[in-house]
Amino acid sequence: MSTSKDMSPKAVVHLIPTLLSEEGVQTIPAGTLLALEACRILFVENERTARRQIRRLLPSFDIDGRTWHRMEQDMTEAKRAFVEALRSGLDIGILSEAGCPGIADPGQELVRMAQQEGAIVRPHTGPSSILLALMASGLNGQQFRFNGYLPVASDARRKAVRDLESDAWRTGCTHLFIETPYRNEAMVETLLSVCRPDTRLCIAMGITSPSENIRTMPVEAWKRQRPSIGKVPAIFLLGRD
Amino acid sequence: MSTSKDMSPKAVVHLIPTLLSEEGVQTIPAGTLLALEACRILFVENERTARRQIRRLLPSFDIDGRTWHRMEQDMTEAKRAFVEALRSGLDIGILSEAGCPGIADPGQELVRMAQQEGAIVRPHTGPSSILLALMASGLNGQQFRFNGYLPVASDARRKAVRDLESDAWRTGCTHLFIETPYRNEAMVETLLSVCRPDTRLCIAMGITSPSENIRTMPVEAWKRQRPSIGKVPAIFLLGRD
Repeated sequence: MSTSKDMSPKAVVHLIPTLLSEEGVQTIPAGTLLALEACRILFVENERTARRQIRRLLPSFDIDGRTWHRMEQDMTEAKRAFVEALRSGLDIGILSEAGCPGIADPGQELVRMAQQEGAIVRPHTGPSSILLALMASGLNGQQFRFNGYLPVASDARRKAVRDLESDAWRTGCTHLFIETPYRNEAMVETLLSVCRPDTRLCIAMGITSPSENIRTMPVEAWKRQRPSIGKVPAIFLLGRD
Repeated sequence: MSTSKDMSPKAVVHLIPTLLSEEGVQTIPAGTLLALEACRILFVENERTARRQIRRLLPSFDIDGRTWHRMEQDMTEAKRAFVEALRSGLDIGILSEAGCPGIADPGQELVRMAQQEGAIVRPHTGPSSILLALMASGLNGQQFRFNGYLPVASDARRKAVRDLESDAWRTGCTHLFIETPYRNEAMVETLLSVCRPDTRLCIAMGITSPSENIRTMPVEAWKRQRPSIGKVPAIFLLGRD
């Protein structure tokens, strides 16, 4: 790969957060929209949904005047296009499907390349379900760990939950993890059957949507008051009392 | 403490992020300003700086028409006032000195109480140096841990860095930590002398300010190109290659 010396002018890579819910238009700040406006080349997960989001956020945006690239499962083509984009010196935008690019999404691989190439990387403010859930949970924000997805197989998942819970009690660290919506109920089952009654569990559902609901209670209280999450996007947090 | 049944009407606690840098006015979204506008009672770390920020963000805000409470080292008075505020049924706002309340700030204790009392907690979007640094670092965003401040004493600090680095290599987790600005240079010294040459170190300085600079390089490259951070607010990230 080339070094930054080979690039002229220096590329700027903008990381543009997108909406977590259709109703969250007012969660995207003006500075982020200005940066989006400046981008000539866009890397997105799904071109159709990205176009729809941009049309909603920035109706004046000239969608067809930009160059679009898809970040697919196999990132080979996106990476090739990204190297070329960096060399063009044009402003580049990376958008994730929802929330902040570079956090648990394929955009991270491109940001990594941008750093290796010595490009200027500008992260822009927008909604993150991880951060919003942590803020509202009331759990320890001085020490926290995001663990992505836990294993799917029942025994491995129970062990993973037990390990996170025991680390939370030992170190005070808040542990966050996510689940695909159709496994939300199974995750709740596991948490309520595995965790100590006094462990504090936060379930954050539908963040930034009209049905947003972020509740922290001891596991024993959740058992008396079973949450009904359905298929709403949710994030789970465990912490000690 | 009373349960939610005793409260009528149900209190809403808004978590209002504030600017990371004076120039970052466009990082606060409209939805966050609307929520701020709705708050009748405000809990802040420093009333003078909070008033100044609000005057800049929302010039029409009737500052003197609100009730103000300070979150001090000793939170006794703030907690007492907060319980009373929850019972008033008025919209309550919690602001941190910079960035997102509830993450590494005294506001978290109040959020914890709000959850215990069954209040509605609404987190609002705004700039977070932790999240913005992670996005731009290109380091693993599927697994990350924020570790707050590391120990100050030299030996304990070296050991802490070694432990984080070894966890990063073992699990792939990105480790983030902060330092008070006047110890930035000492932190860099420690990192460059303790870490493996191939460990990737991100130094994120002056986030959202005009001098923002977020660079990720292997430790050996940082040694050849020593960063000069001075007393700019910085956040440090370690990750494996």
